[in-house]
Amino acid sequence: MDEIDIEVVADPQLRDPVFVEGLPGVGHVGKLAAEHLLEEKESEVVRRVYSEHFPPQVGMNEDGTTDLVCATVHAVELADRDLLVLTGDQQAGDNAGHYRVTDAFLDVAESFDAEAVYALGGVPTGELVEEYAVLGAATDAEFVEELREVGVEFREDEPAGGIVGTSGLLLGLGERRGLRAACLMGETSGYLVDPKSAQAVLEVLEDVLGFEIAFDALEERADEMEDVANKIQEMESQQNAMATDENLRYIG
Amino acid sequence: MDEIDIEVVADPQLRDPVFVEGLPGVGHVGKLAAEHLLEEKESEVVRRVYSEHFPPQVGMNEDGTTDLVCATVHAVELADRDLLVLTGDQQAGDNAGHYRVTDAFLDVAESFDAEAVYALGGVPTGELVEEYAVLGAATDAEFVEELREVGVEFREDEPAGGIVGTSGLLLGLGERRGLRAACLMGETSGYLVDPKSAQAVLEVLEDVLGFEIAFDALEERADEMEDVANKIQEMESQQNAMATDENLRYIG
Amino acid sequence: MDEIDIEVVADPQLRDPVFVEGLPGVGHVGKLAAEHLLEEKESEVVRRVYSEHFPPQVGMNEDGTTDLVCATVHAVELADRDLLVLTGDQQAGDNAGHYRVTDAFLDVAESFDAEAVYALGGVPTGELVEEYAVLGAATDAEFVEELREVGVEFREDEPAGGIVGTSGLLLGLGERRGLRAACLMGETSGYLVDPKSAQAVLEVLEDVLGFEIAFDALEERADEMEDVANKIQEMESQQNAMATDENLRYIG
Amino acid sequence: MDEIDIEVVADPQLRDPVFVEGLPGVGHVGKLAAEHLLEEKESEVVRRVYSEHFPPQVGMNEDGTTDLVCATVHAVELADRDLLVLTGDQQAGDNAGHYRVTDAFLDVAESFDAEAVYALGGVPTGELVEEYAVLGAATDAEFVEELREVGVEFREDEPAGGIVGTSGLLLGLGERRGLRAACLMGETSGYLVDPKSAQAVLEVLEDVLGFEIAFDALEERADEMEDVANKIQEMESQQNAMATDENLRYIG
Repeated sequence: MDEIDIEVVADPQLRDPVFVEGLPGVGHVGKLAAEHLLEEKESEVVRRVYSEHFPPQVGMNEDGTTDLVCATVHAVELADRDLLVLTGDQQAGDNAGHYRVTDAFLDVAESFDAEAVYALGGVPTGELVEEYAVLGAATDAEFVEELREVGVEFREDEPAGGIVGTSGLLLGLGERRGLRAACLMGETSGYLVDPKSAQAVLEVLEDVLGFEIAFDALEERADEMEDVANKIQEMESQQNAMATDENLRYIG
Repeated sequence: MDEIDIEVVADPQLRDPVFVEGLPGVGHVGKLAAEHLLEEKESEVVRRVYSEHFPPQVGMNEDGTTDLVCATVHAVELADRDLLVLTGDQQAGDNAGHYRVTDAFLDVAESFDAEAVYALGGVPTGELVEEYAVLGAATDAEFVEELREVGVEFREDEPAGGIVGTSGLLLGLGERRGLRAACLMGETSGYLVDPKSAQAVLEVLEDVLGFEIAFDALEERADEMEDVANKIQEMESQQNAMATDENLRYIG
Repeated sequence: MDEIDIEVVADPQLRDPVFVEGLPGVGHVGKLAAEHLLEEKESEVVRRVYSEHFPPQVGMNEDGTTDLVCATVHAVELADRDLLVLTGDQQAGDNAGHYRVTDAFLDVAESFDAEAVYALGGVPTGELVEEYAVLGAATDAEFVEELREVGVEFREDEPAGGIVGTSGLLLGLGERRGLRAACLMGETSGYLVDPKSAQAVLEVLEDVLGFEIAFDALEERADEMEDVANKIQEMESQQNAMATDENLRYIG
Repeated sequence: MDEIDIEVVADPQLRDPVFVEGLPGVGHVGKLAAEHLLEEKESEVVRRVYSEHFPPQVGMNEDGTTDLVCATVHAVELADRDLLVLTGDQQAGDNAGHYRVTDAFLDVAESFDAEAVYALGGVPTGELVEEYAVLGAATDAEFVEELREVGVEFREDEPAGGIVGTSGLLLGLGERRGLRAACLMGETSGYLVDPKSAQAVLEVLEDVLGFEIAFDALEERADEMEDVANKIQEMESQQNAMATDENLRYIG
């Protein structure tokens, strides 16, 4: 196998495509959003990207067969335009790998003449989120304005420390190729898989790209996660109570 | 030395060979199984694979001489067919190394026109195993069926997280070359070297490949390990008893 | 992107330039010193150095746009001569990357016919510093003498363990190219960002290169840091008092 | 700089040279032995080996100048023959680097037609050593015999886990080039720099290569280390006494 291997699975004509990335990250927000798009809309696999920078691993299918770790690009048909949606279970395991694999993703985007790149992800707040704001970042000021108009928030110096991994490099390397790219980051506690944050990110994408999508499946999953979160909170408050008791005994 | 160096030691004509891998891993199941094959059957070394992706190390022979770390491919003569058996003390130390070294193993398999690849290993259960089931994974659905017929179990989403390392890549990279490959994973606690699990895996291999092998040596080793396991369990239950006493004192 | 990519932003004629490096390190001394130079003097960006050896990351600008991680070389105009000042938020993440990125920095220095290289940094003392001495190291004995004459201290075997990272390699690789290079290391506790140490280093640079610079901004920042340091010291002495009490209880 | 850069400093005609390696390792035995050789005998630097696989670092000289990290090969003149002695402060920081740097060392050995390679090192016993045995390993059985005759011990399966790093690879890669190589490992506790173990190793080398060397300097250093060791032992036995007291109080 080559260092990076782009398998061409299909080569359809796409209408005004934009490239949307949803790999694993904080709260699995980007991954949930991208996978929800694929579940709700017609799609077909167009590319698979294999790389020795991914972990040496195969994943299990339900029938007992296996698939080598890869990132998959799907063509998704919306009412007025098409999307390229990138999903996968892994990111690269080293710095140079991150750069090279992201360059391969951008090669795919350019091979379909994608007009723009949207990197979906989460931004950790460290506490339970009530209002799911979506933070943004983009390669140019005009793109920032477009996103601000549909409700994306831009806060000085946030996220602190910038944007790391494939999402960050899609902007950084995209800009150097002359591609417009933006990152949409749903606020999320950072402690749990967060379908509500994914929904907030997708609602922004609906506005920007002009499409509609049902959220029932994502809302159901959000309810399940809320039950989990409640149980964890309950356990924690019990533990804190016990810890306080012990502390009192210890110090007193 | 090149990045990977395949030393040709012998080039015998083999009858319908299949390639069997048994490198170190969970419970040393694959390694024990492969080494038991070599002890019980006629064999000769045909290839040695050296690589700078292995640790920088030599192993000691009994006579005071040393050998550079490598993986060794042996030709094993069975009644009706031949095997290629891969053994070694090390796996690659980095992601890219895993991909490249496994590609070299598959080059060896193809140079002997191997019909199929069997990766032997263990799957950790986290508790002492009573019934040694063998879990499977394969590159195609037909191969899954063949293995299910001889008692290999296929469970949805097991092993969770897929198959990592050389065993996983033999399937992942093998499939991309058009090679049929399967992984046979003996259940094992994951805490100890497990000759019984290795025997369970070899019994499956006997059925699939149509050969017979004596297990006395492996059973002896299993008895030794059981003594070790019993002693550990004894020590643990004593420690737990002590810990419980202390806990009571601490809380009460 | 290539492994290392030097973007030419401007190519001005410079008067007797020397190359000054201030990347992040102990007490952020070098970085503070270099950034203070850029704030107080006229400057323009001349080169940006991108590399896959840097972390895969973009930084946020105030307007919501992003910039790919890079090191930036500025031309700075002083009264009698010009400087090339290297700043950035990151160093390379691996050994080979450090060597290759530093070689790129030296390529930039040589492309402007830089007469000498000054690596600015801090040397940790492990305790609060009262008198801010500046330690030195250089590629040749004559350069050592020049620096000693303006008050730079040279102590046998200090810093113990030599000089690590870009600063060290600017000397090590610079010497091998025939470039004169020196490292100026302000003493600093090693626990806090240290503007006073940065000032001490810049005062040496003023003497060596013959320029003057205002320090008000740096002194203000030093006052802020002193407040922080005092609060930390206060908290620590309280904690020590408590710890001593507990120890007495525990042992007694 | 290239990945590996062999600087030719001098190219003397050597009489029947053998190559002796003494890089840092367990108890600094090999390094102490090699440096003692250089202190007691006439020597000149013949090669410096630089590599981006070494840490990005310069070392400090006494006069304030710096030297890029490297490994140095010295020609040493003995009564009847010459040695090439390899010293340095660092080993490579990654697997591939170890292989490539060691290959460069062997290139130097072959460029001087070295007859054999001796890797000097220590083998940790985990306890204070009374009798300083020297363990051996070699590329061929005849070499093993030669060494056994001068008192080198060969014990089955020792050192367990083989020989790691440059010393191991000098044998492993040396053998693949047809070079005779041996490793001489002085027993040492593994906790302290051990000049006595270095002396034991050099005494073997005296016998094998037919030369004599004074040990006063090494014996002096051994006395100093013994004082250190005694103090540590004293402190430990006091701490153990205290720990036992506390344990009794805690459980009782």
